[in-house]
Amino acid sequence: MMVGRVIGTVVATRKSDALVGQKLLVLQPLHSSREQDPSLAQGAALPDIPVQDVPMQGGPVENAFPPDAVVAVDTVGAGVGETVLVALGSAARKALSRPEAPVDAAIVGIVDSIRIAGREQG
Amino acid sequence: MMVGRVIGTVVATRKSDALVGQKLLVLQPLHSSREQDPSLAQGAALPDIPVQDVPMQGGPVENAFPPDAVVAVDTVGAGVGETVLVALGSAARKALSRPEAPVDAAIVGIVDSIRIAGREQG
Amino acid sequence: MMVGRVIGTVVATRKSDALVGQKLLVLQPLHSSREQDPSLAQGAALPDIPVQDVPMQGGPVENAFPPDAVVAVDTVGAGVGETVLVALGSAARKALSRPEAPVDAAIVGIVDSIRIAGREQG
Amino acid sequence: MMVGRVIGTVVATRKSDALVGQKLLVLQPLHSSREQDPSLAQGAALPDIPVQDVPMQGGPVENAFPPDAVVAVDTVGAGVGETVLVALGSAARKALSRPEAPVDAAIVGIVDSIRIAGREQG
Amino acid sequence: MMVGRVIGTVVATRKSDALVGQKLLVLQPLHSSREQDPSLAQGAALPDIPVQDVPMQGGPVENAFPPDAVVAVDTVGAGVGETVLVALGSAARKALSRPEAPVDAAIVGIVDSIRIAGREQG
Repeated sequence: MMVGRVIGTVVATRKSDALVGQKLLVLQPLHSSREQDPSLAQGAALPDIPVQDVPMQGGPVENAFPPDAVVAVDTVGAGVGETVLVALGSAARKALSRPEAPVDAAIVGIVDSIRIAGREQG
Repeated sequence: MMVGRVIGTVVATRKSDALVGQKLLVLQPLHSSREQDPSLAQGAALPDIPVQDVPMQGGPVENAFPPDAVVAVDTVGAGVGETVLVALGSAARKALSRPEAPVDAAIVGIVDSIRIAGREQG
Repeated sequence: MMVGRVIGTVVATRKSDALVGQKLLVLQPLHSSREQDPSLAQGAALPDIPVQDVPMQGGPVENAFPPDAVVAVDTVGAGVGETVLVALGSAARKALSRPEAPVDAAIVGIVDSIRIAGREQG
Repeated sequence: MMVGRVIGTVVATRKSDALVGQKLLVLQPLHSSREQDPSLAQGAALPDIPVQDVPMQGGPVENAFPPDAVVAVDTVGAGVGETVLVALGSAARKALSRPEAPVDAAIVGIVDSIRIAGREQG
Repeated sequence: MMVGRVIGTVVATRKSDALVGQKLLVLQPLHSSREQDPSLAQGAALPDIPVQDVPMQGGPVENAFPPDAVVAVDTVGAGVGETVLVALGSAARKALSRPEAPVDAAIVGIVDSIRIAGREQG
């Protein structure tokens, strides 16, 4: 599974029936989330920071949407700023209330902590 | 799921039976769609801009076809210039009227807006 | 789906039973097919150009085999030089006469034309 | 399958029901595991080296989490510092005690040795 | 499918039950196999060249294990030095005697020859 940070939300009114009622979140892989947003390095909680809300036709959102971002369906009540575990591919559908939905990415856990061995010596 | 922009169409007369009647669109990931086409940065709607229509043998379409473009089956009535949500892999078939078609990418939603947190501070 | 150009063929006598009788073609993604072979830029048809036929032990074919090439089973009668639509992953098996074959890439259409919007302004 | 080295652990209290009781390990592909951690080149066993344990909000773990790391469910009793064989995609679920869990990566073997041919001449 | 060259073997005593008795081979994509091992360019057969056999804890095998190598289950009697056809993802399991094994890569053919069109002009 991928570890990512929730950095935004997607609204799509016209969509596949099986996606109705699903919360769509934008995720960025953990390792790149700090580079792209310096505020993430300061230890502040994210949910209250201002957001950028742009229409989709020719707007500047392409700049804000990171190259490695993906959109996933939330299945655990995740919010913007949280670090999450993401199942990709056919595994994503195993987490859905509607397993026949056309979904290839799902948030399946909220990460409390990660321990990496030996990094103090790096 | 991937967020992409519809940048073109594909015509294939000879194809798998299960693909007959499916609309095939060319998509580019959102983050790279502006770099590749400066006109996309000006806020103008795309559907009316001129198109390049080239035959497939030795023509210049290789230059126009972006390296990261994919071809997807449309399931929601999307058109050129729209920003869409794309399901990849086995998820794509869940959105089709013919779920046994040999399809690995399907447009499953039209994006109204995306909100990215904290980008004002970037 | 991927759009690719057929650039060669593969012969494998010893193989999985379910692959017997399947035509195996070498494909390269469309965008890179011209860079790698200058002759493709001149508009000439490809099927008659000379081919390189090399044995597999220590021969020079590694140089000729592009890094991004894949081998796919043909299901629509495609030939060398044609631009094709390729289904990857589990979708590939949906196009086969033997859906239980160990195949992860299949040619599912022959592309007549591709229209890309707005490239005249690029 | 991928060959990776176990470099850490993940704790997620809130998660998909089918993930409860599964051990989640952080893996790095073998070839890059030494570059990222010089101590790995000295032949010492890893399980006893100190670990870095950081909270997930704005902490420095993004630096410690390698770009190519993945999180996998352990099915063979692997531990930090071991070299393991990892099944990705739908194959991962074949190794689980709960095959319906939303899992796209599973450790399916502990590697005793790898023999690479001809490297003495490299 | 991928075309690769068999460059080594993997021994794993502790592993998923369904992997017992499966031969695990290390593969490298064809295009990069020559760069990494100059001896491959000289036309000599590979099976008799010396091998490097290293333990997994802190040894130098990370250097010998190419970044793009994968481990696949052999289903056709392939050996070190041979050029093979590899099925990835769910397709791999279609080739196995035990289709429920947690396997995402399988050797499904031994390549006799590859013909690439037009390379003489490259």
